[in-house]
Amino acid sequence: MGMTSLLLSTAASATPYSQATLTHAERLHQHALTSDSALQTVESLTTEVGPRLAGSEGDARAVAWAQAKLQQMGFDRVYLEPVEIPHWERGYADARVTLPFPQPLVITALGNSVATPEGGIEASIIRFPTLADLQAAAPEQVSGKLVFIDHKMERDKEGRGYGPVVKARGVGAVEAAKKGAVGLLLRSVSTSSHRFAHTGVMRYIDGVARIPAVAISPPDADQLTRMLARDSDIRVKLDLEAMDHGTTTSYNVIGEITGDRKAEEIVLIGAHLDTWDEGTGALDDGAGVGIVTAAAGHILALEQRPQRTLRVVLYAAEEIGLLGARAYRDAHKGELDKHFIAAEADFGAGPIFRLDSRVNERALPAFDQMHALLAPLGVERGHNHSWGGPDVSVLPPLGVPVAGLSMDGTDYFDYHHTPDDTFDKIDPDAIRQSAAVYTLFAWLMANAEVDLRPIPLPEER
Amino acid sequence: MGMTSLLLSTAASATPYSQATLTHAERLHQHALTSDSALQTVESLTTEVGPRLAGSEGDARAVAWAQAKLQQMGFDRVYLEPVEIPHWERGYADARVTLPFPQPLVITALGNSVATPEGGIEASIIRFPTLADLQAAAPEQVSGKLVFIDHKMERDKEGRGYGPVVKARGVGAVEAAKKGAVGLLLRSVSTSSHRFAHTGVMRYIDGVARIPAVAISPPDADQLTRMLARDSDIRVKLDLEAMDHGTTTSYNVIGEITGDRKAEEIVLIGAHLDTWDEGTGALDDGAGVGIVTAAAGHILALEQRPQRTLRVVLYAAEEIGLLGARAYRDAHKGELDKHFIAAEADFGAGPIFRLDSRVNERALPAFDQMHALLAPLGVERGHNHSWGGPDVSVLPPLGVPVAGLSMDGTDYFDYHHTPDDTFDKIDPDAIRQSAAVYTLFAWLMANAEVDLRPIPLPEER
Repeated sequence: MGMTSLLLSTAASATPYSQATLTHAERLHQHALTSDSALQTVESLTTEVGPRLAGSEGDARAVAWAQAKLQQMGFDRVYLEPVEIPHWERGYADARVTLPFPQPLVITALGNSVATPEGGIEASIIRFPTLADLQAAAPEQVSGKLVFIDHKMERDKEGRGYGPVVKARGVGAVEAAKKGAVGLLLRSVSTSSHRFAHTGVMRYIDGVARIPAVAISPPDADQLTRMLARDSDIRVKLDLEAMDHGTTTSYNVIGEITGDRKAEEIVLIGAHLDTWDEGTGALDDGAGVGIVTAAAGHILALEQRPQRTLRVVLYAAEEIGLLGARAYRDAHKGELDKHFIAAEADFGAGPIFRLDSRVNERALPAFDQMHALLAPLGVERGHNHSWGGPDVSVLPPLGVPVAGLSMDGTDYFDYHHTPDDTFDKIDPDAIRQSAAVYTLFAWLMANAEVDLRPIPLPEER
Repeated sequence: MGMTSLLLSTAASATPYSQATLTHAERLHQHALTSDSALQTVESLTTEVGPRLAGSEGDARAVAWAQAKLQQMGFDRVYLEPVEIPHWERGYADARVTLPFPQPLVITALGNSVATPEGGIEASIIRFPTLADLQAAAPEQVSGKLVFIDHKMERDKEGRGYGPVVKARGVGAVEAAKKGAVGLLLRSVSTSSHRFAHTGVMRYIDGVARIPAVAISPPDADQLTRMLARDSDIRVKLDLEAMDHGTTTSYNVIGEITGDRKAEEIVLIGAHLDTWDEGTGALDDGAGVGIVTAAAGHILALEQRPQRTLRVVLYAAEEIGLLGARAYRDAHKGELDKHFIAAEADFGAGPIFRLDSRVNERALPAFDQMHALLAPLGVERGHNHSWGGPDVSVLPPLGVPVAGLSMDGTDYFDYHHTPDDTFDKIDPDAIRQSAAVYTLFAWLMANAEVDLRPIPLPEER
C-alpha cells in the first residue's frame, strides 16, 4: 500500500492525527528519505571532536560543538544544564603473560578502575566461566589471584546477550575482591572475534578492597583458556596508570522547537553526547545524536510548527552511569508531568525495526496508526513495556510515557566501547531510515490528540 | 569421479607415478582429510610461543619449539642453521592529531623505523594518494612535513592488490626524506575496515635522512582525509621509541625424512617461523608451519619411505627481508642442483585453489596428473610461472624448480601484520585441505620419475 492510500485509510477512521498533521507527515517522510543530515552530523562530531569521555577535554569540545550545532540549525532555544561528574582517565595500560608462555595481551582498563601499584602487579590467574561461578568459589581458591571471568556474549538483534554478561563488568571486581583477588580480567562484553578489548564502567563499594579491573579481547580470553588447558599456573602482569581526577562539570545540551499550541507539553527525543575514550563514538552514540538532531532539523524545515514543544536532549555522561539522565530528571522534576512522551536513540545507526511503547492501553490505537505510517520503512509493531532507552529509562518510574524505536543491534556489540567504533561503521541507509522514523514519531507525537497517561507501572528490572 | 577410478585412469596411461606411489597417495589423501594435525600445530605454536619477531626472545623460543616439535614427530634428521639478522624492537609508539581536532590515532611503527627524537616530533601533514604522487611533488611542498600516503589496497583472491601498494611501505620514507619530510604516515597495506594498523618492513638508504615511519589504520587514514577536507593544516605528533639492537643470530630449523632410493635429491617444503610482534602469527605464518609439518607427518606415518629426501625448512627472519631464505640459499649452494623442487606455504591457512609450477615444459604432464589427484580437493590447474612463495623465490634464479600451491587470500590482508592475526582466524577445514594438498604434492614429487629441469628462465620482477 502506498503512502497516500495509507493516509486516506487512517484519516477515514477516528484518529488522533489530523489531516494536516498527516499531510505534513508525508512531506517529512519524503524529505527524510532523501536527506543525509544524520550521517553528516555524525561525520562532523566524530571527525572534529572524536573521543569525548565524560569530563575530558574532548567532552568539553563536544558540548561546545553541540551547542553551536543546535544554534546553527535554528532551534528556538538552545541551553546547557550542568551535570556534576567524576573525571576518570585511562592513562597507560599493559598486560602480559609472564609465565610459562610470555606474551602481551590486548586489554583495556574498565572505566573507573583504580591503577595498579607502581611497577604493576603479577599473579596467577583463576578462570571462572561466569560471575556466578566466581560467587560460588571458595575464597582460598581465589585469594591472591587475578580473577579471569570468561563469559561469552551471545549475538542477538535486540542485544539480549548483553544483560547476562555485563553484570560481571559492573560487580566482578567487588565479587573478586571479597574473596581476596588482586585484580579482575574480564572477557570483553562483545560479540566480535577481533582483537579489541571493550571497555565500560565498573563500580566499587565501600568496605571492599578496590582492585584493578580490565577487559581482555575475545581472542586473548581464548588464548588464556588454551594456556590453562596446558598449565594450571598461568601468571599475568598487569600495569595500569588509571587516574581519578575528582569531580568536574559537564553539560546536558538541550535544543527546543517551541510548540505553537501546547508549548508547555514536551516531546523529548534524546541521545548521549559522551563516549568512551578509545573510539570516536560513531555508533555509541554519535549515531543517536545524528538521528535525533536530523529529526528535529526536518521538522524545523517545515513552515508548520508542531503543537507541542519538541525537545532534543543530548545527555552528558551516559557511559559512566546515566549521570546526565539523572541530572535532567532532577532539574526537570517540576515539569515531568508535562513530558508527553520520551524516546532515546542509543543502539547504533539502525535500521529501526520495531515500534515499542509504554503508554496507557487506551492510547495504543494511536501507536497502531503511527505504525501504519512507519511500516513502509520496515518497522514492525511491538510491545508496550518499553523503557525508552538508557537515559530515558529514569523517566517511566516517575510516570513519563516512553517509546522504544528499536534498532537492529545484531552487529552493535562488535564495535561498542572499542577503538573500532569509528565513522566508517555507520551504514548511510540505516541511519537515514532511523532519522526518518524519529522524524515521523516526533512529529506525530507533537501533534497527537490523545492522552498517554497513566502508564502501566514499570516492572522491577 | 572417485579417487579409485581416478587412480585407475591415471595409472592406465604413461605416468611418472608408479602404482605403489598412487596407492600410497590415496592412503595419504584419506588420512590427511581426517587429521587436525596442522591445526594443532598452529595452536601449539601460537599459544605456547605467540609473537616471535626475528631476533626477539619469542623468536628464540620459537626455534626451540620447532626443533622439539620436529624431533618429537620422528624426522630422521633435525638441525639448525644460523642466520645473522638485525634485531629491531618496536617499543612505545603513539601518534595523535594535536590541531585543530585533537585526538589519538591508531598507528604502528613500520619494522626497521628509527625512533623519534626524545619528546616526539610534531608537524603538519601533507597527503598523497599514492607513492607516485609523492615522487612527483615539489620538495618545497613536502619539506618539514609529515608525509601521509593514503593508497588503498584492493581485495583480491591472489593478493594482487598488495604489490602496487606495498612499495610505498618499503621506500616511502626514503622518497619523503629526499624532499625534506620529517616522517612518514602510511595508510596500512590492508583490505580491512577495522582499526588495526598493519606493520611490515621498511628500508633506509645511505645518504638520505632516516625519518620515522609508521602505518596508520584504515579508519584513521580516512579520518585524516576528512580532517584535511575541513582544514589544510592538520598537525600530528608522533612519538616512537623504536630500538635497533644491532645484529643477532636466529636459525632456520630443518627436518628431513631421508629418501630410501634417491636420498641426495631434495623435495623442499617450507614456511617461515618468524612473525611480526603484535599478533601471534597464526595466518602469517603459523598456518604454513602447520601445513608443511603436517604434510611431512602424514608421510612419516606411512610404512613406505619416499624415494627422495623430504626436507621441511622453517625459515628464520622472512618478515624482515627473506634473511633465512638467503642464508639457506648460500649455505646449500653446493646442493641446489639436487633440489628436485621447492614450495612454500605463506599465505594464510588456505584453502589451496590452484596448482602452479615452474618446471621444464616436458614435465607439465606430471603436474597435470598430480592435478587429477588434487582436483577432488577443489584445486584448479594453473600456470607455469610460479615463484614458489617468498622464501623459496630466491631459488628459481639458481635453476631450482618450484611449485605454487596457491591459497585463497581473499581475507588474508584483513589480518596480515596486525595484532588480530590470532589462532581463532584459522579455518579448520581450510587448513586441513591445505595440509592434504601439501601431503600429496610432497609425496608425488618425492617419488616421481620425471626430470623437471632446466626450468624456464625467471622473468625480471
